[in-house]
Amino acid sequence: MQVYLDNNATTMVDPLVVEAMMPFFSELYGNPNSLHKFGTLTHPALSKAIDQVYTALNASDKDDIVFTSCATESNNWVLQSVFTDHIVNGDKNHIVTTEVEHPSILSTCKFLEEQGVKVTYLPVNDQGIVEAETVRGFITDKTALVSIMWASNETGMIFPIAEIGEICKEKGVLFHSDAVQAVGKIRVDLQATHIDFVSMSAHKFHGPKGIGALYIKDSQALTPLLHGGEHMGGRRSGTLNVPLIVGMGKAIELATQDIEITGAKIREKRDRLEDAICELSDTFVIGDKWARTPNTILISIRGVEGEGMLWDLNNGQIGASTGSACASEDLEANTVMLAIGADNELAHTGIRLSLSRFTTDEEVDYTINHFKDAVARLRNISSSFAKQAPTKGGEVQECELHHH
Amino acid sequence: MQVYLDNNATTMVDPLVVEAMMPFFSELYGNPNSLHKFGTLTHPALSKAIDQVYTALNASDKDDIVFTSCATESNNWVLQSVFTDHIVNGDKNHIVTTEVEHPSILSTCKFLEEQGVKVTYLPVNDQGIVEAETVRGFITDKTALVSIMWASNETGMIFPIAEIGEICKEKGVLFHSDAVQAVGKIRVDLQATHIDFVSMSAHKFHGPKGIGALYIKDSQALTPLLHGGEHMGGRRSGTLNVPLIVGMGKAIELATQDIEITGAKIREKRDRLEDAICELSDTFVIGDKWARTPNTILISIRGVEGEGMLWDLNNGQIGASTGSACASEDLEANTVMLAIGADNELAHTGIRLSLSRFTTDEEVDYTINHFKDAVARLRNISSSFAKQAPTKGGEVQECELHHH
Repeated sequence: MQVYLDNNATTMVDPLVVEAMMPFFSELYGNPNSLHKFGTLTHPALSKAIDQVYTALNASDKDDIVFTSCATESNNWVLQSVFTDHIVNGDKNHIVTTEVEHPSILSTCKFLEEQGVKVTYLPVNDQGIVEAETVRGFITDKTALVSIMWASNETGMIFPIAEIGEICKEKGVLFHSDAVQAVGKIRVDLQATHIDFVSMSAHKFHGPKGIGALYIKDSQALTPLLHGGEHMGGRRSGTLNVPLIVGMGKAIELATQDIEITGAKIREKRDRLEDAICELSDTFVIGDKWARTPNTILISIRGVEGEGMLWDLNNGQIGASTGSACASEDLEANTVMLAIGADNELAHTGIRLSLSRFTTDEEVDYTINHFKDAVARLRNISSSFAKQAPTKGGEVQECELHHH
Repeated sequence: MQVYLDNNATTMVDPLVVEAMMPFFSELYGNPNSLHKFGTLTHPALSKAIDQVYTALNASDKDDIVFTSCATESNNWVLQSVFTDHIVNGDKNHIVTTEVEHPSILSTCKFLEEQGVKVTYLPVNDQGIVEAETVRGFITDKTALVSIMWASNETGMIFPIAEIGEICKEKGVLFHSDAVQAVGKIRVDLQATHIDFVSMSAHKFHGPKGIGALYIKDSQALTPLLHGGEHMGGRRSGTLNVPLIVGMGKAIELATQDIEITGAKIREKRDRLEDAICELSDTFVIGDKWARTPNTILISIRGVEGEGMLWDLNNGQIGASTGSACASEDLEANTVMLAIGADNELAHTGIRLSLSRFTTDEEVDYTINHFKDAVARLRNISSSFAKQAPTKGGEVQECELHHH
């Protein structure tokens, strides 16, 4: 048996999505901007895909949803263009974000700091989130943008986006959310939330890699990141990627049409896995179960290095992660765990397990067995675990609030 | 029969390329940055694809070839980052380009002009190209970048890239070429040419849409356009698009491995089509046959509106274009034809026919017959053609140099 539990990094493309894309590679391959039938024959499928995305997110007809190559592009676009429009060519100079954003936000902020922008990186609380009232306190007259993730890639914790949106509206500040880990996992209703820009990526919800989108409320002005022809109303140039747009439309429809039911089924498996692992002594899970996306566990096992655990799981054909795949080739401490106050040793023990709607009960059973055996094996050879008694205080206190 | 003659807009994905990509959608779907086998099992295919691209372009191991989402991204990246690195954070203020570049170059230059950059847009000569010595005359001490296309999307005319490269090297100025219409159509040898940056896109040579590359000579520094994780050495963030990179590798291998032989076969069909159409009176083809990419014809038929001709061809199941697909929804005069000095009426008569290695002799025969009939039909109802005698002078003089 092989078990893929790294769905927050990327997902299997749903075979139904592949089937939907297939005709557009070698049959209906025309450029949709062309006037001939090779181009125009792609239009019904494009329209359908656009409808699927609007419906899935409950976007308004007045809003724009612009296809991009991925959420990294969407994130760079918002930050760099708000910089151009409101800082270089405006009177603002400040961006508010968090310490735990995806590297595509954090690195872009570092780049903008080099260009003179002031950036506030808010720390997360012991639940791994930033509270809305905390955000309020850091918005100034010079703030151009608040950019805060909808849900954490590492912990699955859901941020109070609706409340932050209300504060940004009240303060007259633009609000962006990287919703890569929310779209397809929890209900995202863009008419129920005051939010200006939302980034998403299809490969996080069983769509293809290489296609994402940026939602733009009320089709408001935003300088393009990719300048060029009149594609997508001049907002994002490059030949329209018909197969991948069709794939994203199908994937978001499949992921959201029964999201509460599907989410409950994933949650049941996730909780069973989590509860079983937490029967082991000195295990710590970050964040309340109900405050997380239903598929994610970030667990620490005192005395077990994350990389050692990954290796053992990999030998058992189980794919997991120590955190973000973007940084997983580095043997660094889990930054979210450090942010919530874990000590450095504990922050090296984080293991993220992220399920999907394709995860089966048999896979959960297999994983529970292998995981328990692995912990026993690794603790047996762990110098740090052998030497110290399990602790109940000090720097790991915040984690232990969620100790099972 | 249906005949696709718009291969400069986009191409059919070669079924062999689709076959190469297929395993990476729903089987080997891991994130290559992940440490587990779902990620690492993608590495051999990625390495192979990278090798295929380096081999196809004869790039050196010292060079970087960074995958992007398309040539529009590559073009934006070079222009915007040269702006950041050498104009904002340097002592340059000038870019040299041409009037006939793709919109992703021209629109980005317009955007940079708004940020204070001086841009020289060189006009093309009567062959539709810019001569190397012309470029020399416009390079100043303040010039940060020369950006000139390798071959024209509209005429197929090949620019003197090697000579321009030598001049840029001598002057110590960075040189970029948008080679979207050259890669896969003519031999592009990056060790035989002095050039710093080259943009390309897979969907122009029977690869998938949504994947392109930027070649960076000697892996020189260039601020990223998409900031984020450490993907591709920190040069371009976003999850590596394994299926599309594999598809691009396969496509560039197929397109270049016998490019001289394949090109000769396409040229033979192109020339037969061109010669047959030119038997009609008052037809004008832009540029010498041997100076063009082997697949392209831009032809004007006095008295026949380009859009009317497209419509008639479309009724005959033939897909062609009046020029760039990026602007083909606008009923505007062909900008390249205007640039080479055609009068406005003639510039509305341009029809671009672009063949591929999949174009058959039967399709050429069918197109010749339909095309001739269409010209007769449309001239019959043309007020302008009926009223005026064919002219041999004045503003159309340049075109008539190539009158057959």
